Amino acid sequence: MKFSIERGALLKAVSQAQSVVERRNTIPILANVLIEAEGDTVQFRATDLDIEVVDKAPAKVERAGATTVSAVTLHEIVRKLPDGALVTLSDDSAAGRLAVEAGRSNFNLATLPKEDFPVMASSEYASNFKAKAAELRRLFDKSKFAISTEETRYYLNGVYMHVADADGGKQLRCVATDGHRLARIDADLPEGAADMPGVIVPRKTVGELRKLLDEDDMDIAVSVSETKVRFATPEIILTSKVIDGTFPDYTRVIPTGNTRKMEVDAAEFAQAVDRVATVSSERSRAVKLALDEDRLVLSVNAPDSGAAEEELAVAYGDERLEIGFNAKYLLEIASQVDRENAVFLFNSAGDPTLMREGNDTSAVYVVMPMRV
Amino acid sequence: MKFSIERGALLKAVSQAQSVVERRNTIPILANVLIEAEGDTVQFRATDLDIEVVDKAPAKVERAGATTVSAVTLHEIVRKLPDGALVTLSDDSAAGRLAVEAGRSNFNLATLPKEDFPVMASSEYASNFKAKAAELRRLFDKSKFAISTEETRYYLNGVYMHVADADGGKQLRCVATDGHRLARIDADLPEGAADMPGVIVPRKTVGELRKLLDEDDMDIAVSVSETKVRFATPEIILTSKVIDGTFPDYTRVIPTGNTRKMEVDAAEFAQAVDRVATVSSERSRAVKLALDEDRLVLSVNAPDSGAAEEELAVAYGDERLEIGFNAKYLLEIASQVDRENAVFLFNSAGDPTLMREGNDTSAVYVVMPMRV
Repeated sequence: MKFSIERGALLKAVSQAQSVVERRNTIPILANVLIEAEGDTVQFRATDLDIEVVDKAPAKVERAGATTVSAVTLHEIVRKLPDGALVTLSDDSAAGRLAVEAGRSNFNLATLPKEDFPVMASSEYASNFKAKAAELRRLFDKSKFAISTEETRYYLNGVYMHVADADGGKQLRCVATDGHRLARIDADLPEGAADMPGVIVPRKTVGELRKLLDEDDMDIAVSVSETKVRFATPEIILTSKVIDGTFPDYTRVIPTGNTRKMEVDAAEFAQAVDRVATVSSERSRAVKLALDEDRLVLSVNAPDSGAAEEELAVAYGDERLEIGFNAKYLLEIASQVDRENAVFLFNSAGDPTLMREGNDTSAVYVVMPMRV
Repeated sequence: MKFSIERGALLKAVSQAQSVVERRNTIPILANVLIEAEGDTVQFRATDLDIEVVDKAPAKVERAGATTVSAVTLHEIVRKLPDGALVTLSDDSAAGRLAVEAGRSNFNLATLPKEDFPVMASSEYASNFKAKAAELRRLFDKSKFAISTEETRYYLNGVYMHVADADGGKQLRCVATDGHRLARIDADLPEGAADMPGVIVPRKTVGELRKLLDEDDMDIAVSVSETKVRFATPEIILTSKVIDGTFPDYTRVIPTGNTRKMEVDAAEFAQAVDRVATVSSERSRAVKLALDEDRLVLSVNAPDSGAAEEELAVAYGDERLEIGFNAKYLLEIASQVDRENAVFLFNSAGDPTLMREGNDTSAVYVVMPMRV
């Protein structure tokens, strides 16, 4: 194998690949990236056995072939090469070495045989459709904060992507919850997605996927089966196993009868919550919301360190209500609001509270209260 | 005590104070800042028993007095208040509370009695002089990287500031070393500093001092005794104990007979060292320098992971030389060069090497070689 490639193109391809590689590996070849050169293209493939990413980059291939080298070392080298450099990679399979040359820099990296590299088995996908990068980004960005980190509830360690019935017909929906808060985000159902099986996309996959979604108008090819999900651009293919479990029936958690409505400027609200939470000790960050006509008083009482109180003007016309929340959960939910005022719908101090942006029901959040 | 103060002035004063406070304290009052209001000034005082910082800020004092509150909590609150806010602090000593009010925000913080706050005893200083902030910054910035972190060699855990005889007469000199490398930085001796006793300024003090030195032309009042050092601007007084030990005779370590001279572009050199070091494992980062006429070859050989080589054009006219160095030490020293080419003076592969900027002898670095 021998090819030359522009440093920028090489860096982009290797960056995406190396981020999938786990830092601590008991299986040495999983630390490596599989490099395959053929025609006028080079492919970089990396995997952690659950996720596989394949990056393509244009290159001048002198001798087709394949080998594997440490993804982290290759990435570090390319990152440190000067911008605009032309990099030549050539392998000596007898010596088990890959030469990397650029200008007056010469590197010789240890390789492992390409035959040992675990390539993910290809699948039949039940559903194939296209979605705009901006849409997918919104679905995952607004839901991922609620993913659970509890390993015992592994079926909550991802975002549940599925087709749901909403007011306006069928929707593509992403849901995440950790039992304390829940996010439910809807988007128009892409053509051809109606038969998609519901899948739980793991947290790490959601993170890797994010890197494919920078260009708003790019079409992302999505393929879904019962066991796998694939996202592809012309350059990158990200394939991931999905979590083998059943996502709980979240619809029962979303309150429908909450009628006490409060409307508040989301940024002002978040800043006030952040400030009053300062006096509280790290562990029990409970913020009390006391609502009266068009007036919200946020307060925190931490006997050891002190107390804090802040008043906000809000739109509220119902009877007096006092309710407590975890400050971190309130902050995270309030920071999802990017267009309009935050609308909170309460029932009682013991019931889950619903939050949305203005009257938009395509992004709905639920947060459990806390005794204060 | 009751006073009002502009949020920006309060933040600046509290920031400097809280950075001295240790995060983990067995003595509760050391987590607090002592606030003293009198006349038209408020003082914020914090200490870790080795360093004391006093910040002054103008304020509208309604009722003179003093109290202590958690430095970190007060800093967090002030940081989160909106820019331009007017903040009112008033203490209720009977209740043991300090009220912090700004706009619609109200905080009530637990206080500890001001009598319990350990104020550092004042000293007689043997020497008092003024130095420009830019001069002091250069002295400490260029030497601090070489401070030792070995606790057993406590007398190396700081920068040795003293008066030294140099070619151009007496100089104000800062030296730091960890036994592997050494930095010796000279500046013109300020008026009145000739009798200054040599002191070892601890690492943490060097870090805190740095925050006083942002304005190039500001005069810093320096006071030195056998046991303490003090740096003062009109707003801030930083007092620190010095390390109670004898700094070793560093002059014997600085080679004087090194004649094999190499001149190289410092940035190019640093980048090349950084690149070749990539292939080496973290622990033994040895870089080999092979010198021939006007030609330097940097190389690293790590049997497990690979090898790297890079050639640089340099000015060198002596006989062939091969010498090895720790990559991290070489990088740190090369990154001190900011104006001219780096000049290396070698003797043999087993002897310490000297580095300076061009022909400037006011900043000199020594690095020990490593067997490669």
